[in-house]
Amino acid sequence: MFTELSTRYQPLNAETVSGYVHSRPELREVFHIGEEIESVEVGDGNLNLVFKVWAKNDPSRTVVLKQALPYLRLVGDSWPLPTDRARIEAEALKIEYRLCPQHTPRVYFYDPDMYLTAMQNLNNHIIMRKGLIQGIKYPAFAEHIGLFLARTLAYTSDLVLDFRTKKLEVARFTNPELCKITEDLVFTEPYRKTERNRYHPEIEPQVLALQADDSLRTQVAQMKEKFMTHAQALIHGDLHTGSIMINQTETFAIDPEFAFYGPMGFDVGAVIGNLFLSYASHEVRTKDPETRADFRKYLTDTVIQLWKVFEREFGEVWAEVDLINMPKGYQEDYMLRVLQDSAGMGACKMMRRVIGLAGVEDIRGIEDANDRSIAASLALNIAQALIMNRREIRTIEELVEVATGCRPSYPWKG
Amino acid sequence: MFTELSTRYQPLNAETVSGYVHSRPELREVFHIGEEIESVEVGDGNLNLVFKVWAKNDPSRTVVLKQALPYLRLVGDSWPLPTDRARIEAEALKIEYRLCPQHTPRVYFYDPDMYLTAMQNLNNHIIMRKGLIQGIKYPAFAEHIGLFLARTLAYTSDLVLDFRTKKLEVARFTNPELCKITEDLVFTEPYRKTERNRYHPEIEPQVLALQADDSLRTQVAQMKEKFMTHAQALIHGDLHTGSIMINQTETFAIDPEFAFYGPMGFDVGAVIGNLFLSYASHEVRTKDPETRADFRKYLTDTVIQLWKVFEREFGEVWAEVDLINMPKGYQEDYMLRVLQDSAGMGACKMMRRVIGLAGVEDIRGIEDANDRSIAASLALNIAQALIMNRREIRTIEELVEVATGCRPSYPWKG
Repeated sequence: MFTELSTRYQPLNAETVSGYVHSRPELREVFHIGEEIESVEVGDGNLNLVFKVWAKNDPSRTVVLKQALPYLRLVGDSWPLPTDRARIEAEALKIEYRLCPQHTPRVYFYDPDMYLTAMQNLNNHIIMRKGLIQGIKYPAFAEHIGLFLARTLAYTSDLVLDFRTKKLEVARFTNPELCKITEDLVFTEPYRKTERNRYHPEIEPQVLALQADDSLRTQVAQMKEKFMTHAQALIHGDLHTGSIMINQTETFAIDPEFAFYGPMGFDVGAVIGNLFLSYASHEVRTKDPETRADFRKYLTDTVIQLWKVFEREFGEVWAEVDLINMPKGYQEDYMLRVLQDSAGMGACKMMRRVIGLAGVEDIRGIEDANDRSIAASLALNIAQALIMNRREIRTIEELVEVATGCRPSYPWKG
Repeated sequence: MFTELSTRYQPLNAETVSGYVHSRPELREVFHIGEEIESVEVGDGNLNLVFKVWAKNDPSRTVVLKQALPYLRLVGDSWPLPTDRARIEAEALKIEYRLCPQHTPRVYFYDPDMYLTAMQNLNNHIIMRKGLIQGIKYPAFAEHIGLFLARTLAYTSDLVLDFRTKKLEVARFTNPELCKITEDLVFTEPYRKTERNRYHPEIEPQVLALQADDSLRTQVAQMKEKFMTHAQALIHGDLHTGSIMINQTETFAIDPEFAFYGPMGFDVGAVIGNLFLSYASHEVRTKDPETRADFRKYLTDTVIQLWKVFEREFGEVWAEVDLINMPKGYQEDYMLRVLQDSAGMGACKMMRRVIGLAGVEDIRGIEDANDRSIAASLALNIAQALIMNRREIRTIEELVEVATGCRPSYPWKG
């Protein structure tokens, strides 16, 4: 939350990184005293400085320093953001690491004066979104992310935490300003005329129709309410494919600065929604029909498999709960609601990426306006189908069927 | 939450009250310096000392001092309760007074060392439950409580509060131990064998059948989850007819020590459920059929009217919201969900009063075992009908129809 900036806060720069690194005893296991350190700032996000740091004569000894800036870079000083998000992120990473170390970067320390976290450098991994754009398959992803979702969500819910811990954790992860960004950019602005929306002019007719659709806006309002009131588990809060570092054998979820106690479906839906954004983009990105069908089958198989892994791993928790108080029918209902929430939340995350301020390269990076409009239109149609039909969806296969049954509306038919 | 007891904490007693009262500048507007003060301890609750205090030569100048005991009186020292609940109650009273002064006792001050609140003495009022047992009608109650519910719930929700205030208020009203009492006594223990349950042996067959009913327990688990996760508004948390001080022209809601951010339906349902407990009790309490029918019509008319007042007053808030983000369809859906939650939550509150540790005099005070079993059985049947049919209920009239269509199962038919 908003507090005074620490008087010891200094944004790091190329000159000061080395001295800072050597001043931290927690990094003695990585760097030798006084040795030469090299670094590069790689922040391509909007909120932070990110330094990759390594020993000059052994680059395998390396860490990442992530430091919060007190404003949102995307829009300059005009949108101040609390540095408390750095604490939230570091504390969320520690919990995720405890619950699922194989898919969470290790934290060396959090510096509350510098709003800085030192963590594992994932330098053998790329941002998943970039890989998906190139049509690269990640065969282990579904298994990895299903496990990550199940463990981080189930084990921070009321199903596992005792009554007091849960409620104190809700208070500790109070994250108003970052939640507000989501409330505005995901659940509000795409559905109205605002100058911050950034859709391509070619798809304006479809956007205007969507914004005029009361029944759609009613469903979106329900999703927004759920995001704002349903303190179900400690969610990552921003788990799109740009928050996933990946290679053929490893997967890491990074950047949980949006973490708070919210609905599980927001995280599961973020992953699924971003896989469908990729699916929509390959309508035009991959011209060869066979290659396209093959990659899309990989994407939809991944959606199905990640949910099945999620259910399987979540089952470990259900196996431990009190059956009198939580009978079988409740368990089935609970998981079905997470699935339906995922469809609705994922849909909102897809629509905002096409219409709203922050787009995704999958779609907005398509150079040809005609192609881009086809992909954007398909993404919107998939999203609308998912949110409007979510209460009828009973299985992950049905969810995928709803999505794959959609076609682009562009080019417009007279 | 649990913190060290203040070193300045002293439970007041008959000898120390007067000195304490004269030590507080906030009470100078009530009592003259040094004048003789009389008092009596009237706490019949389980958690607190309650002193009525007045000026000996002018009893109309009077206040109530409510002081938290660090344990639950009902079960002695064995169930320690945090004194922080006194802060919660005083802060909730202040908010309720700001939003609805005509139905909230005025707070003079809260003493954080003594866990003591000085407030308006409602000495022209009786506890509503006692009046209802005697068959007294309160014609203004529906209008009053509908207004109280609408104003306290709507104005503490995300519909009115800005994003930051709402989230900070959720943290400020974190109330784990008192929520845990509700989680256990309302949503858990009545549905299982435990030695703390207190139902009459005559209705055991019905209780055992209910506890063996998986579909009922599934619905109760959903209500429990909603109570634990749905931070919709600052709710009173214990709004039964024993928390209402009333006469023919005035109504006050007292004792919000269970207050926290929870589902609106828990408060609305508490009122409705307790009116139906009264309804069930008059099956046997009022022997004359005409008098019985007349009083029951008063009760069901009250349920209908209080909801209509609630909707009408809540409408003032809907008239102010952003119609693009919250279209008409969302408003209707929102109010319908509050109604259906009220049916389910009210049902749980009825069942706990028949089966669980803390009963109500309406039912348990019936001396004849046969009569008592008839009333208890009817209350359980109304509750089951309300929770199992809640998703089909679309109007308050339908809710009342579901309840009034029930008959007692006792005496058992062969």
